Parts: sequence; C-alpha cells; structure tokens
Amino acid sequence: MEADAIVIGAGLAGLTATRELKQAGWTVRLLEARERVGGRLKGYALGDGKAVDLGGEYFGDKSTLIAETARSVGVERFSTYDDGERVAFVNGKRFTYGGLIPLRLGPVALPDFGRAVLKIERLARRVPPDRPWTAPDAEKLDSQTFWSWCRRNVATAPARAFLTMAVEAAYCAGPADLSMLHVLTYANASGGFRYLLEVTKGIQRYRFDGGAHSVADKLAARLPDELRTGAVVRGIEQRSDSVVVSGPGFTARARFVVVAVPVTLAGRIAYTPALAGFRDQLTQRMPAGSAIKCLAIYDEPFWRADGRSGQVTSTDGPFRVAFDTSPADGSPGVLSAFVTGRAARTLTLLSPAERRSAVLDGLAKGLGPRAAKVVDFVEQNWLDEEFTRGCYHGYATPGTLTAHGPALRAPIGRIHWAGTETGVHQLGSMGGAIDSGRRAARELLARERGERPAGRRAEELTGHVQ
Amino acid sequence: MEADAIVIGAGLAGLTATRELKQAGWTVRLLEARERVGGRLKGYALGDGKAVDLGGEYFGDKSTLIAETARSVGVERFSTYDDGERVAFVNGKRFTYGGLIPLRLGPVALPDFGRAVLKIERLARRVPPDRPWTAPDAEKLDSQTFWSWCRRNVATAPARAFLTMAVEAAYCAGPADLSMLHVLTYANASGGFRYLLEVTKGIQRYRFDGGAHSVADKLAARLPDELRTGAVVRGIEQRSDSVVVSGPGFTARARFVVVAVPVTLAGRIAYTPALAGFRDQLTQRMPAGSAIKCLAIYDEPFWRADGRSGQVTSTDGPFRVAFDTSPADGSPGVLSAFVTGRAARTLTLLSPAERRSAVLDGLAKGLGPRAAKVVDFVEQNWLDEEFTRGCYHGYATPGTLTAHGPALRAPIGRIHWAGTETGVHQLGSMGGAIDSGRRAARELLARERGERPAGRRAEELTGHVQ
Repeated sequence: MEADAIVIGAGLAGLTATRELKQAGWTVRLLEARERVGGRLKGYALGDGKAVDLGGEYFGDKSTLIAETARSVGVERFSTYDDGERVAFVNGKRFTYGGLIPLRLGPVALPDFGRAVLKIERLARRVPPDRPWTAPDAEKLDSQTFWSWCRRNVATAPARAFLTMAVEAAYCAGPADLSMLHVLTYANASGGFRYLLEVTKGIQRYRFDGGAHSVADKLAARLPDELRTGAVVRGIEQRSDSVVVSGPGFTARARFVVVAVPVTLAGRIAYTPALAGFRDQLTQRMPAGSAIKCLAIYDEPFWRADGRSGQVTSTDGPFRVAFDTSPADGSPGVLSAFVTGRAARTLTLLSPAERRSAVLDGLAKGLGPRAAKVVDFVEQNWLDEEFTRGCYHGYATPGTLTAHGPALRAPIGRIHWAGTETGVHQLGSMGGAIDSGRRAARELLARERGERPAGRRAEELTGHVQ
Repeated sequence: MEADAIVIGAGLAGLTATRELKQAGWTVRLLEARERVGGRLKGYALGDGKAVDLGGEYFGDKSTLIAETARSVGVERFSTYDDGERVAFVNGKRFTYGGLIPLRLGPVALPDFGRAVLKIERLARRVPPDRPWTAPDAEKLDSQTFWSWCRRNVATAPARAFLTMAVEAAYCAGPADLSMLHVLTYANASGGFRYLLEVTKGIQRYRFDGGAHSVADKLAARLPDELRTGAVVRGIEQRSDSVVVSGPGFTARARFVVVAVPVTLAGRIAYTPALAGFRDQLTQRMPAGSAIKCLAIYDEPFWRADGRSGQVTSTDGPFRVAFDTSPADGSPGVLSAFVTGRAARTLTLLSPAERRSAVLDGLAKGLGPRAAKVVDFVEQNWLDEEFTRGCYHGYATPGTLTAHGPALRAPIGRIHWAGTETGVHQLGSMGGAIDSGRRAARELLARERGERPAGRRAEELTGHVQ
C-alpha cells in the first residue's frame, strides 16, 4: 500500500483534506493535474513581489473558515477599496450611486427591488444548505429557473434587470440557467442573499495581501512529501481492500480516495466498477458557471482621485461588474472586470483582442477615457481551463437538487467526495472548499474508528448496483 | 495513416457514418466501447429466434430515415398492438379510455388539456430543429422549464398531471428538468407534439420484427473490417496532419474523426489540445434523460382476450407508461413498463427485487392480478450503463440552446460530431442518429472536395483558442 489515502485535486478542498489527514498521522498522496496548486484560485504577479487574483478573491466577516485557514499560514487580509461613487448601466441608462442600488432607478423600481431582495432573503433562510431538498416547497422552487421566479415576483423592468445583473455577477450563470432552489441554497450558505451582493457590508469585504491563491501556495508548501503536480487522474479502480488511481505515467494505490474536483470533472474520471447511475446523473447536472476575469492594470488607481470606487456594474455591457482590485498599498492601480454568465458566453467567442477592446470600452464608459489606457491587460478565461472548465462553482440546474441531491456527498465504497460544491458552510466559495475537505477527512477518520460513515444510508442507495 | 476516418461509437449514428464513408471509398475504423453494437438499441432474446427491445423501439410514418435504413438491411416492420381499452391512473383515480386521454377526466380538464396540446403544437411549428435559438421568443422559451410553462398555461390539475405524465414518458425527464425550447424543438423534429404522444396515429405506430437493435446488428454485419468492439476511447489528440485516438490497449490514427456518442460522454473524452470552453460547457448542459425499461414476460398476452390494449399510463405510479411489446405473432406476451423521469430516479434507488415488485404491482393494478404472474422479468437500467448513462436522449437544460446551441454540430479542427442529439430530422430518436451520421459523413466528403466545412463560421468561433 502506497498511502492511507489519495486526494485528487490540490485546490483548497484537497489541500485541506490532505492537511487534516496528515495531522492525524495518515500517509497521503495529493495528486494535482496542473503544475500549480489552488484550483480556482490563481495569482498574477505584478512585480515587486506583489500579486493579484485571477480567480477567487473575496471574503467577508461570516467567512470564518477561509479567515482561519489564512491566519494559520500567515496570510494577511485587507479591506476591499469601497470609497466613493459607483457607476451602473441599467438597460442602457447611466447612473452614479452610493449604496446597493442606484436611488434614481425610480420610485417604483426601488421598492420593487427591495421587496424582491427581502423575499429571496426570507425564502433562503428556510433552505438548509446541507439538505436543500428538504426545504419547504423544495420541489416547487427547484422546478423553476431564477428567470421564471423574477417574472412572477419582480414587477418593474429596471428592478428585474438590476437583480438579474447582481445574480449573474454572484453566480456566474444566466437567469435561465439557475434553479431557484440553488439560488436560495447558495445565498443561505453564504450568509444571506443581500450579504452576497454587498461589498463592505457583505462577502466582498476583504481580500488577501498577496492574493487568495497565496493561501493555497502556503498550504502546499507544508505538504512537500504529499503533493505531486502534473498528475492527471483518468481512472479510479476500487478493489476489495484498496483503491487504485491512475493517469498518464503513474499508478498509485491507497486504502481510500478523496475526489476533490468540481462535480462535472469528477464525472469525467473512469471508475471501475462503474458508478451507480444515480450518482453519474448528478455529475451531468451541475455545470460550472461561466466566468472570464479581466485585469486592467494602470500606473495608479486614477479613479480614486476622481472620487470613484472603481465599481462599475452593467446589466447589458461586456462585464457584469468591475472592482478596484489594486494591491493593499494602491500601487499599481488594478481594475478587475468580471465577465460572467451570458456575457461570458458572448465574449468567449471573440478573439482576445476583441475581448480586450470590449472590456476596456466598458471601463472607459464607466470611469472615463483614462480607463482605456492600460499598462497591462490580462485575462483568465475559466471556461477554457481544462482542469476547471468554468467558475465560480458548479450550480444545480432545475430539478437536480430534489432528484439527485443526496448523491452529492454520499461516499461510494472507498471513494469520498470533496470540492466546494459539496461544502455546506459557504458552499461554492473558498469556505465551502475548506468545509468539504475537513468533512471528507473526518469521514475517513471515522471509518478507521469503525464508525458508520456519514451519509451511509445514501451510500447504500447509490452503491447497491455494485 | 491507418485510415481516412475513425468513427467513435457503433450506435446508429456511427454505423451510418461508417457505411456512408465506406461507400464513398474511404477507409474507416469504427471503434465501439462495448462488445455489442447498437448503443441505445439493445435486444433481449426470447428464445425460438425471437427478440424484443430493451432500448429504442418505435417509429411512425414520418420516421422515413429509420424505415429506409431498415429496408436496406432487410428488417421488417409490424404494427404496434393498439386495440382495446387503455387504463390510466391520474392523481390516484383509475380510468379506462380509448383515445389520447380519458374522456372522464372531466368537462373542464378535457378542453384544458386539448388547448394546451394545441398551444404547444403551434409553438413547436415555429422552432427550426436545426437552429432552435433563432425561433421567435427563443430566449423566453429557453428561460423557463416545462413545469413553469404548464403553470402559466394549463389551468386544471388533472390536465396538468396528464400532460406532465405524457412528457415524462416521451422525454424521460421531469417537468422541472426540461427547457421549454427543448420540448418544442424535439416535438417539431419528431413530426409534431401530438404525433409524439400518439400510438397508431403517431410515432409509436410501428416496431421492428426481431427488434430495432437488429437493424444495428445487420448494419454492423456489413462492416466486418471496419468495426472493432471493446475499444474504449479515452483520448483524442489533434495534430497538424492527422488525429490520434487512443484508449486502453490501442492507438489509431486517421485524417479525421467522427465522435458519435451522446454529448455528455463526448465531454468525458480527453482532448489534446483542450477544446474551447464554449464547446465544453455545452457538454456540461445536455444531460441524458432517466429511463429504466422493464419487460414483464407471460405465456400469452392475456390482456388482449380481456379487450385491453395492454397500455397503462400513470401520473404517479412506478412507471409512466406500459405497452404491449409482444413479438409480431403475439407469443409470448410481453409488457414493457417505461420507468422514466422522476420515476426512474426513485426506482433506481431500490434493489432489483423491490423494483420488480413495484413494477409488477403497477401492472396488476392496471390489468388485473394475472399481470403479477410473470414467466420472466428483465430490466434495463440505462442510468447504470457506463457507455450510455441515460435514455432516450440528452436534453437541453434551460438556457443551454440559446447560449451554447451553435456548438452542437460545429466541427473543431479534425473532429466532427454525430449522435442523435446532433440530428435534425427526428433528433433524439433513431432517425436523428441516422441523420447525424449522414451529415457527418457528408461534412468529411465535402472537406475532401475542398469545400468549406458545414458550420465553418461556428468552427472559427469555437476553435479559435487553439
């Protein structure tokens, strides 16, 4: 036996599972397909030892797990720049504003938006993130898209457009893609729907000095014997006493395996024996969101001197939202444009030059012509990344959580599942990844103690065909 | 160079593409993962040289492509047994009836159902099966589930239940799963929505003597040099002058490749270079439907003597619909119970014994206690089949056709796509598979003549990141 456990995927979930098992005295192999760790966290070096994020970036006061993990490896946080005016484009009109939504959106649209947010908030509180399929009206909520819910519950066009834009920025999926039950699950797991949309009052409150990916880098640095990069897992074979994991150029054997990759990618591994259809069909129904993150880099954050926050939102522009993502000391100036949902699907079809031009044009419309004059422009198209295939997370299409939800975390034989989609606390974010890695490690340790594994009933259900 | 073309998957699509290319003088390798051909067509031998279908089975007068293919290999058709009474269970009540729907469903529900069918029929006619994303109101129709559409357009509970049951039987997906635009696309491609639901007046009119799978068997028998079974394709590598296809124990090289497997499974092949995200994200959003087909076999079709058709439908039972699927001469008696959509997801979690008991119980409720006394009981769980992973076909989740539809057939480099999901005429059925295989073969032949490949513009769009 080569190891007690093999962990597949060195994102935050896999790194956490490996760390916890190692601390418990287990021998672990952590296999990562790429030459870097971090998964959906990725850095871009600005020079002078500074770096910004091409992937996951933000967290808030309720994000206790990522804050704790970062503290444990000595990564400091700082506050997201959130002073000054915001700019919004709503159905072609330009607004400047201070709060969550432009007040000039209109005397009817404003309370309409407020009522909708409150309604979603109340619905979300009733959805348990670990078992959304047991929520009141779960089947009804899972049978409709976010688009359909808005049609019934939001009366004015500007409110609907602004709400859709916010959801498209937060979920990276179009209003047609998302099961309303998934919208509520993610909102509740994140700390609330409004909290999800807010900056200083919400989940965008903090960033990490040196970038969020440096948390992953520092976790990996403590696992030099465990980590192997460039190991693309293509097959998992379960035997009576062990599990064999293989890919081009390697084979490894252990007592257990933790698959810590997005649900869709977990479905692309060849399992022997084949997994039960109930689990396989889940992997067909949790597609990754669509996100292209573009960094526009300037000598300085010129918008700050103009009294602007750098935040630009757009219901119909090339990106849904842009933020000031300059390093802690404000030098150089960096704007990140989040091209998400339907916008990402349109822009992914353009050439890099066309995409750059569209994004800079959008920034210039919001912040003036200086925004078009960049020192550097970097894009990260998460759709094209072979070992991610979309961001921020895999969402549930309508009908999926109520039909296949119980398969999400249920171990099958010697295989346990991790990854942010399987988290509970802040599922879909950095916290969800850590939560899932801890849970998977706990499951393995409990098995060793001879306890019934968590989710055992579901395991019996999904595993019986073998 | 080993061959001009490699075709992956020996279902009707791959068999057709291989046949057409061979007829044009090309050398072809047809690689099939299983030890049998036919894909979603599969036979069950009854003895005495008789066989029935565990997979695809029916076709109608509008199904010209499958009829023509069957004729070309000498497989005869016969009429589906459709005489006598039908039995329906609608929201717990039992009805016997003759036509499309029980007349005793009620004076309000009946016209309500009729209006809904007519409305769907009219909407469907406006959706071009080759480009559904260009239909009037395409985005609106693609933004809602079939469940949401019914809520707005069908007033009575019995009509809604009966309509949902019919769609669940025809599409193998729950009302929550399906984009309304997909429902319309499939209906129009099939010859109409009502046509899709009818037996003698519709797409269930005929069956094949010896089973539909015998068409695939006979096509394969003419391709002895081309076909290689047991070849599981795991990788496709595009080079400047060729394409290399590989799997456990083999490597093959050709000028072009036709991937003729369901869209989800096409997404599970490892491509080098990695495919553009626009195409990959499509493969994440066309899950296979959920179907378990159960055959209950009796000495004779006892229901016929009782004046019954053998047809039992149920809005809430273990199966959505059962048919008399006895061989042409009526001996032995065979009933096929189609456990589809939500019913399949519930029943797949039961043990085989529990499933058998649930299905026989449902048949006995409909046709009397003799239905529980079988000579043999056979089930085909398509969710569990590793190289299919669901039936009847891959459907589009909401938002998918309008966002990623153009990636469905667009070749990428030397890779062309087939499979019933990529068909136009009768997409999703046997005809769609044949249509897609012919189109893919035509695309390759046109390339050889130096013509711009079909879908070239889309190819440029989806292929540019390489």
